Amino acid sequence: MANKNDLEKLAKLVRYFILASTTQAGSGHPTSSLSATDLLTGLLFGGVFRFDPDYPDNPGNDRLIFSKGHASPLLYSLWAAAGEVSEEELLTLREFGSTLQGHPTPEFRYADAATGSLGQGLSIGLGMALNAKYIDRLSYRTYVLIGDSEMSEGSQLEAIEIAAHYKLDNLTGIVDVNRLGQRGETMHGHNIESYGKKIASFGWETILINGHNFDEILDAYNKALSVTDKPIMIIARTIKGKGVSFLEDKNGWHGKALNREQFKEAIKELGDFDKSICGEISIPESLKTEKQLPQTAGKINYPADKPVSTRKAYGNALVRIFPEFPDLVVLDAEVGNSTFAETFMEKYPERFFEMYITEQNMVGTALGLSCRGKIPFISTFAAFFTRAFDQIRMCQYSEANIKFAGSHAGVSIGEDGASQMGLEDIAMFRAVFNSVILYPCDAVSAEKLVEEAARNKGIVYIRLTRKDTPVIYDPDENFCIGGSKIVRQSDNDVVTVAAAGITLHEALSAYEELKTEGISIRVIDLYSIKPVDVSTLRKCGNLTKAVITVEDHYSEGGIGEAVRSALGSYDIPVYSLSVRKAPMSGKPEELLDYEEISKNAIIKKVRELL
Amino acid sequence: MANKNDLEKLAKLVRYFILASTTQAGSGHPTSSLSATDLLTGLLFGGVFRFDPDYPDNPGNDRLIFSKGHASPLLYSLWAAAGEVSEEELLTLREFGSTLQGHPTPEFRYADAATGSLGQGLSIGLGMALNAKYIDRLSYRTYVLIGDSEMSEGSQLEAIEIAAHYKLDNLTGIVDVNRLGQRGETMHGHNIESYGKKIASFGWETILINGHNFDEILDAYNKALSVTDKPIMIIARTIKGKGVSFLEDKNGWHGKALNREQFKEAIKELGDFDKSICGEISIPESLKTEKQLPQTAGKINYPADKPVSTRKAYGNALVRIFPEFPDLVVLDAEVGNSTFAETFMEKYPERFFEMYITEQNMVGTALGLSCRGKIPFISTFAAFFTRAFDQIRMCQYSEANIKFAGSHAGVSIGEDGASQMGLEDIAMFRAVFNSVILYPCDAVSAEKLVEEAARNKGIVYIRLTRKDTPVIYDPDENFCIGGSKIVRQSDNDVVTVAAAGITLHEALSAYEELKTEGISIRVIDLYSIKPVDVSTLRKCGNLTKAVITVEDHYSEGGIGEAVRSALGSYDIPVYSLSVRKAPMSGKPEELLDYEEISKNAIIKKVRELL
Repeated sequence: MANKNDLEKLAKLVRYFILASTTQAGSGHPTSSLSATDLLTGLLFGGVFRFDPDYPDNPGNDRLIFSKGHASPLLYSLWAAAGEVSEEELLTLREFGSTLQGHPTPEFRYADAATGSLGQGLSIGLGMALNAKYIDRLSYRTYVLIGDSEMSEGSQLEAIEIAAHYKLDNLTGIVDVNRLGQRGETMHGHNIESYGKKIASFGWETILINGHNFDEILDAYNKALSVTDKPIMIIARTIKGKGVSFLEDKNGWHGKALNREQFKEAIKELGDFDKSICGEISIPESLKTEKQLPQTAGKINYPADKPVSTRKAYGNALVRIFPEFPDLVVLDAEVGNSTFAETFMEKYPERFFEMYITEQNMVGTALGLSCRGKIPFISTFAAFFTRAFDQIRMCQYSEANIKFAGSHAGVSIGEDGASQMGLEDIAMFRAVFNSVILYPCDAVSAEKLVEEAARNKGIVYIRLTRKDTPVIYDPDENFCIGGSKIVRQSDNDVVTVAAAGITLHEALSAYEELKTEGISIRVIDLYSIKPVDVSTLRKCGNLTKAVITVEDHYSEGGIGEAVRSALGSYDIPVYSLSVRKAPMSGKPEELLDYEEISKNAIIKKVRELL
Repeated sequence: MANKNDLEKLAKLVRYFILASTTQAGSGHPTSSLSATDLLTGLLFGGVFRFDPDYPDNPGNDRLIFSKGHASPLLYSLWAAAGEVSEEELLTLREFGSTLQGHPTPEFRYADAATGSLGQGLSIGLGMALNAKYIDRLSYRTYVLIGDSEMSEGSQLEAIEIAAHYKLDNLTGIVDVNRLGQRGETMHGHNIESYGKKIASFGWETILINGHNFDEILDAYNKALSVTDKPIMIIARTIKGKGVSFLEDKNGWHGKALNREQFKEAIKELGDFDKSICGEISIPESLKTEKQLPQTAGKINYPADKPVSTRKAYGNALVRIFPEFPDLVVLDAEVGNSTFAETFMEKYPERFFEMYITEQNMVGTALGLSCRGKIPFISTFAAFFTRAFDQIRMCQYSEANIKFAGSHAGVSIGEDGASQMGLEDIAMFRAVFNSVILYPCDAVSAEKLVEEAARNKGIVYIRLTRKDTPVIYDPDENFCIGGSKIVRQSDNDVVTVAAAGITLHEALSAYEELKTEGISIRVIDLYSIKPVDVSTLRKCGNLTKAVITVEDHYSEGGIGEAVRSALGSYDIPVYSLSVRKAPMSGKPEELLDYEEISKNAIIKKVRELL
C-alpha cells in the first residue's frame, strides 16, 4: 500500500503516461483523464481496491468500470503504472489493431465492458454488485468512475434509484466533477453540493471531497467500506487538465491531444518523475466461484388442442430450463405479468430481479451480470426495448451474453394501439452486430428456442406474441439457430410463403383455403430471422415461382429485407407483405387485414402471382 | 367555475363515462383512470385550466398532456363531461377507426401528442412550456399528468432537471400516486414524501396532497399559479380504482375492463349521477400568435478547392435558412461544437436551447415545440440518437415536425472507436413510419438538404460526416427529397455504384482509378435514402450489369437493403458493400479498407463482376 508520498509520485507517472499516449495517438481525452488521475491513483494504489493481476479470474477481485469511457488514457495509464501494461503497448493507444481502443472495450484485459456512450457505467456496476450481494454472495466491491456531464443522463438516475432499492452497499460511484463538459460548463459547474443533495435524496450515502487531496480521497474510500445497506457516491471537486497549468480548468481542451511542443512544455511542468516505480494493488483473498452442476431440463408438455401464447411459453421455459442453466437470472421491467417472467419469479424468486420501469438500466444491469458469468434473460414489451437501443448497441461491443425477450410484437396486439406495438424491434436487433433473432410461432418452438438462446453465447432476441396461438409442433421437434421448418409442401407448390410468429398461422389458414381451390403453396416457418436459413429459402424459392414474406413488422429492416439480403445474389423474386399503414387500435384480425398481412392478403398475393 | 359540489357531481359523471366506455370496449385501463379522476376534474372544471373549445387554436389555451397515456378513458371522459365528446362517440373507444385510440394520439382533437410509452410526457410538456416562456412569450400554462410507476423512467428525471434549469414556472406536473403499477406495488407505494424529496432536490416546487380531496386539489392548482422561477410538481396520494369498492387499491385490476355484470354493480355503487350536467372550462383571453414573415435565405458559398465537413455545413445552413423559416428552433445535447449547432447558437442564442446530455428529453422537448408550431432541428452524434429510439418512434404517432441531425456517422470517424460510431442509425430511422432520411456527401448538398428538411413537414433525419470532404457540387445545383444525382456516367458503364456521404468520395476515387484501366463505372449519389430514387436506380441498373451499394453502416436495414427493397420486383442484381466486421479504432482510411467499403473494395467488387 502506497503512502501519500508514493501516491503523489504514482499520480505524476500516470499523468506522464496520459500525456505521452494521447500525444503519440494525436487524439484522445487527456484533460478528462487528468481530472480523475488522483481519484483513481488513490483508489488503485491506496490499499482499498483489491485485484490480483496474476489471477485475473479471481472471483474476489474488485471491479472497476469507467463510465466516462473517454478517460480511457487514464485507465490504460493506471495499469501501466501498476506494471501490467508496458510503455510500448501504451503508445499503441487508438492505433488500428491495438487493444487500447479510443474508448475501453473488453479487448483490453482489465476492462469488463465497453463504455464510451455516456451514462451507462453505473447500471453495469449495479449488475455486478447485485451479483456479488444476492447471487454469488462474494466479497468483491464494484467501483464506477462517472463524469459530471453524464450525470444528466436519465439512465444514471434509473441506476441510482434501483441500486438504492436493492441496498447495494458494495457499489461505490465516483463522480469526477471537473466542471467542464465537451462544449463548455456543465449545468452545475463546480457545485458538488447540488449533485450531493440529489443523489442523497435517492437514499445513497454521499461523500463530498476535494478530488486532488489524497487524504480526503483515501478517507472517502475507507469511509465507503463501512457504509451498510446503501450504495455510496463519492462526489469529488476536480480540475479538468489538472497538473498542466495551460490546460487546467480551461474550456476548449475537451478531446484534444497536445502536440509535441505542448507535450514537452507540459512534461517540463510536471517535473521529475520516476518511471521505475510501480504501483502496488492489494491482493484479495483467493476465491473460487462454486459452479452448480447443470441438471437436465424438464419435458415440454402442451396439449395439441389448446392454443397458448408464446409469451406464456417463455415463462414456462425459463422455469423448465433453469436446472440445465444454473447461471440463468431473470429481469423484467415491471410487466412480468404480461411477459410471463412472473412464472419464473414465482418459482425462483431469488433469481428474479424486478427492475421496475427502467429499461435502459435493465439492459445495463444485465450486462453487469453477464460480465460476472450469468446468463440474464430480460423482458419487456418488444416496443419498449427501443428505449434501450443505445445500451443494446453497446452490449455488442462488450461481448455480452444476454437474452432479450420482447412480448406484444406487432399490430396483432389489437386494441391497445400503436404506442404498445413492437413494429421496429426486428430492424433494431438485426442492426446489432453478431445478434441472433428468434421468432417462435407456437408454445413448443418458443420453449425450444428459449433453450437454444440460453445455450448460444451472445446477444439473442426472442420475439413473442400476445395472442394465444395453436400448438403446431410435436414436443420432440428440434429447432436450431439459423434453422427453419417447411410446414406445408407438395410437388405442386406454386409459391413459397415465408412467415414467422403470428403470420405463420395466417399462412397456414391461407394454405387451407387455397387448397380447396386446388392451389398449393409451400409454407416455411422462418423462426430464425437472424441468421436466416438461406439454403431452405433458396431451395424452396427455386422450386416455386416466388417467395412471399409475411411479417407483423414495418417493412424496413424486417423479415422481408432479411430474406431479400439472404437471397440477394440468387434470381428468386421476393414479395414482402408487411406493416405499411399507420397502425391503430382495433381487433387483431381487423388490423392484420388492414395492414394486408392476414390470410386474405396472402391469398390475394398468391393469386396475383399465378 | 364549478363549486365543490358541482365538482363531486362532475367527477361522478366522469367515472361513469370511464366505466361505460371501457366495459363497452372490453379492454382498457379503468382503474388507472379512476385514481386520477378527481385530480383532473378539479383541474379542468375548477377554474384554473383555460381552454376555449370553440377556438381550439387559441394560442392562449392551456395545454394538457397525459404522460400516463393508458388513462386515456379519463381524458376522453373529461371532454365528454365538458360536452365536447358525445356519449355515442365515447363508446367507440378502442374500435377500429375511432379517434379514441387505446392510448391517446392527435387523432383525438384534444390530444397534442401521442403518449402511452411511459415517461415521455414531461419532456413534451417541457417543450411547450419552453415555447411559452422563451419563444412565443405566451401566457398559456402546461399541465402533465404522470403515473407513479413511470417516475422511475430516467427520461422523467432528465426532464425534471432541464425544466428546473430553464426555470419553467409555467409547467405543472401532477403525479398520480395510486401505489399500484401494472404488476404490483411500485417501489415507493403510497410514500408521496419519497417522491417529493427527490423532485424538490432538483429545484422544483412540490405540493403534496390527498388526490381525492377537492379543497386540497384546488388549493394546489392555485398555489402553483403563484410559484415563480421554478416548475411545480403536485404529488397526490390517490387510490387506484377510486369510487368502486371492489376495485379500490386492489392488485390484479390493472388494464382490465369490467364485464357487464361488474359494470352494473359498479354503477349501482356510484349512485345517482346526472348526465345533463356539463363541466365548464375557463376561457382564456383570445390571443393570436404573431407569425414572422419569412424572408429569403442567403446564398451558399463554398470554394470548390477547400474540403469542408457536412456537419460544418449543417451549422452554416441553420444560420442561412433561419430568415426563411422563422419557426426554426435548434436544440443540441451538449455536443454543439461537434455537430456545429454551435454556429447557430452563436448567431441566434435566443433560438438555441442547450439540452445537455439528455437525448431522450431532447426529442421529447422537440416534440413539444413541434406541437406548438415550431420546426425543431436537434442534433447529437448519430450513434447517440439510439438513446432516444422510443421517443423517436412515438414522434411518428404524434405527427411531429422534427429534424434530426446525426453527426459522426460510420467507421470513418476513426480513432474514437466503436462506441462513437453511428452504424445503425439508418436502420433505426428507416424503421420510423413516414420518415425521410437524407445523407449529403458535400457542403453544398448538406446546405440544400437542410433547407429541404425544413420545408418538408414531418420527421427528417440528416446523416452527417465527421471528416472534411471535397465540395463536388455547384451552389446552384438542386436537391430534393426522393432524388439522387448521377455524378459519373458514360455509354460504356459496366456497373452502377450507388453510394452516399463518405462512400460517395470512395466511389469517385474508384471511378478515377478504373478509368485509367479503361473501365467505366456509373456513380450515383444516393443522397435521399428514404424515399430512395427507384426510377434512377432502375434505369441505371438496367443499363449496367449490376448495382453495387457502398455504405458506412451495418448491412442490416441500411442503404443496401433500401435499394434491394426498392428494386425488389425488377431483375437487377444488387451487391452490397457495408460494415460487416467488428468496428474499432484506427485511421479513417484504414477502417474503410478494413470494412471493405473503400475505393479499393469498390474496385475489387467491380473487377469481380466484369
